[in-house]
Amino acid sequence: MTLRAGIVVTGTEVLSGIIADKNGPWLSERLRELGVQLSHTIVVADRPEDVRSALDFLSGCDLVITSGGLGPTADDLTAQVVADFAGRAMRLDEALEERIWQILSRLRARWRNLDEDAIRAANRKQALVPEGATVLEPVGTAPGLVVPTPGPLVLVLPGPPRELQPMWETALRTEVLRELLSGQSAYVQRIVRLFGIPESEIAGTLRDFESTGVAMDALEITTCMRRGEIEIATVFQPEAASQYDAFAAAIASRHADTIFSRDGSTIDEQVAALLAGRTIAVAESCTGGMLAARLTDRSGSSDYVLGGVVVYSNDAKTVFADVPAALIEAHGAVSEEVARALADGARARFGAEIGVGITGIAGTGGGTEEKPVGTVCFSVAAGDARIDRTVLLPGDRVMVRERSTTVALHLLRRLLTPA
Amino acid sequence: MTLRAGIVVTGTEVLSGIIADKNGPWLSERLRELGVQLSHTIVVADRPEDVRSALDFLSGCDLVITSGGLGPTADDLTAQVVADFAGRAMRLDEALEERIWQILSRLRARWRNLDEDAIRAANRKQALVPEGATVLEPVGTAPGLVVPTPGPLVLVLPGPPRELQPMWETALRTEVLRELLSGQSAYVQRIVRLFGIPESEIAGTLRDFESTGVAMDALEITTCMRRGEIEIATVFQPEAASQYDAFAAAIASRHADTIFSRDGSTIDEQVAALLAGRTIAVAESCTGGMLAARLTDRSGSSDYVLGGVVVYSNDAKTVFADVPAALIEAHGAVSEEVARALADGARARFGAEIGVGITGIAGTGGGTEEKPVGTVCFSVAAGDARIDRTVLLPGDRVMVRERSTTVALHLLRRLLTPA
Repeated sequence: MTLRAGIVVTGTEVLSGIIADKNGPWLSERLRELGVQLSHTIVVADRPEDVRSALDFLSGCDLVITSGGLGPTADDLTAQVVADFAGRAMRLDEALEERIWQILSRLRARWRNLDEDAIRAANRKQALVPEGATVLEPVGTAPGLVVPTPGPLVLVLPGPPRELQPMWETALRTEVLRELLSGQSAYVQRIVRLFGIPESEIAGTLRDFESTGVAMDALEITTCMRRGEIEIATVFQPEAASQYDAFAAAIASRHADTIFSRDGSTIDEQVAALLAGRTIAVAESCTGGMLAARLTDRSGSSDYVLGGVVVYSNDAKTVFADVPAALIEAHGAVSEEVARALADGARARFGAEIGVGITGIAGTGGGTEEKPVGTVCFSVAAGDARIDRTVLLPGDRVMVRERSTTVALHLLRRLLTPA
Repeated sequence: MTLRAGIVVTGTEVLSGIIADKNGPWLSERLRELGVQLSHTIVVADRPEDVRSALDFLSGCDLVITSGGLGPTADDLTAQVVADFAGRAMRLDEALEERIWQILSRLRARWRNLDEDAIRAANRKQALVPEGATVLEPVGTAPGLVVPTPGPLVLVLPGPPRELQPMWETALRTEVLRELLSGQSAYVQRIVRLFGIPESEIAGTLRDFESTGVAMDALEITTCMRRGEIEIATVFQPEAASQYDAFAAAIASRHADTIFSRDGSTIDEQVAALLAGRTIAVAESCTGGMLAARLTDRSGSSDYVLGGVVVYSNDAKTVFADVPAALIEAHGAVSEEVARALADGARARFGAEIGVGITGIAGTGGGTEEKPVGTVCFSVAAGDARIDRTVLLPGDRVMVRERSTTVALHLLRRLLTPA
């Protein structure tokens, strides 16, 4: 039997878009790993009646997970609403209050001029828990809760992801959750990724597979376009593994020229693996440091990223990447010639094996009829091997910059992958 | 009377966390501007019964907005589910089919080897609309819909934000929506931002205001911590403006040293305004290009950002920013001395008026007892003025890098703000 779960993300600041929700997606992945089907994620303001109606809506689920609303401020009221939903009174857990106080005392050292009464009141509020709930020890200052109800089991977690994520692990070890999850058969998720192909083409492929008898009945397949890449995510039970393998092989053979990931790895992971034991430097114009930032996102990247230059002005291109002024004069700053000179300048200057040059027009201004906004020239070079490319990217400034970064990674992958 | 609205974001890829939802937050802001209260945003997979139950849950609202599920693939079924919910049959809109075909014909030029039948089928599916619905012209290839139902008015919009956002404007001009929204009194939202203060301190301030009689009954106040900044967002009706002004003045006087925005402006906007007419260059180590990328996020930033260098290795710090090797030897790469040399090197090399140097330990490795992970040194310099700072930032590598970028912007603001 497949368990059904719902997620309730509370917070006026999330509902209103001031901050982006990271917990819904993260919990969704964890549930999938456990073979639990997520039906809805509901984002709701800190209004008790709206939080309650979300719980009521999900009362047919086996498990409801809430995030947020456990903080010290008056609008943090998830514990109370869940207690009402469960028909349980709130009680002060004095031992918990003392443990939270210890945490707060350590934190106080970091701030000046704090109001002690305010801290004591916050402390006490966070130690009020529904009768009969299992308390999950605070990671920050807020405890989590596992609350049995006449309907679903409700797991109450704090909003900050760095508190919620470790507490999830703690929750899985509680007796009530282990009992609920026992007997679940885990589902498997596999992802393949393609680059340089429209989504409608994949839709056509799936329709063709149906009519030519490629078995897909045991597979739940989702396609989506993301940063210029297509992701095909498939969820299935372990018994359907051979059906999935046949499906994945059919995709790979039909789209051999555009598939770049058959094992779920991202382009970032692939490029990082290809760069291991080598060195790279970049010279960026329109992406303004985004490629360097993306390459150095990964811990350990200092082993292969020697550095980069952000060269917005023509002058900076000449001074920092040795692009001849005459070359810019002759071909324009946005040209494959200049991209090539940037890549060569970057690798020469940093003494790196591999160089990347990016120059383009991200907008909103700067476009011409011949080179409209979205025109971006790339060059990636390693030893004598080199790929130059000019593309016209759709979208606004943010999108052009982001896609340019992705294109550069794909060109690097192509250059560095052994033939 | 305040209208209530709900948002249904469809898409297995959104529910599963493969892509982040941007439409819920964006629509939420639009609704607030119109004085419509948003009760819930529900994220749901492309399962017709789950989309339907979300619509049923929101049937007490005056307006429901859906995003996504209008694409060419078989799992895109929002139009059909909304038609069922409304009790309306689907019909083929042949004129619309032809207009979509024209759009697709233009797009086809961009791709090779497309399957014509697949495109025709996708075309026809997207031209099926519920009887009696108002069609909103496609921005991409998918039309939007305004569908009257026995309950709420349902506005059906496509998933890609660059299609949804312009189509929202079109929708507002339709007769049905104008009629629904007539007579709404717009709410006002104001945001103040503080930096360098814990959230519990603000909670204490709000409690004190309550006990000392600062009137807040007509204000809906939300506080939230975001990238190391506190945002206090307040929503109120125009009549309560003087109450808000008194509240905002009380916050500003109590937290004069940490408040940096009283008009909702972001630190990025403020720094951009302060940089107008000047020039800046940056030298980054642990942030790996993120400060340069953030400064160049804004259109027109090429007027003041001359460039930057990403100098991970000690060698690169010396070669690209003239940091003396002996200085690194004496104080370590992560030191205020090196940060200062980076800032000076950056401005000297690029010929910029203002220089920024950042060097730190983002993790996961590299920390020592004396300089643990999260230790970051900054220097910002303009003419003879200069601020140096060392901070210990909490969190993981991603958080340390992001917070470091924010700290650098705040130091720039402090340096550049006239006394």
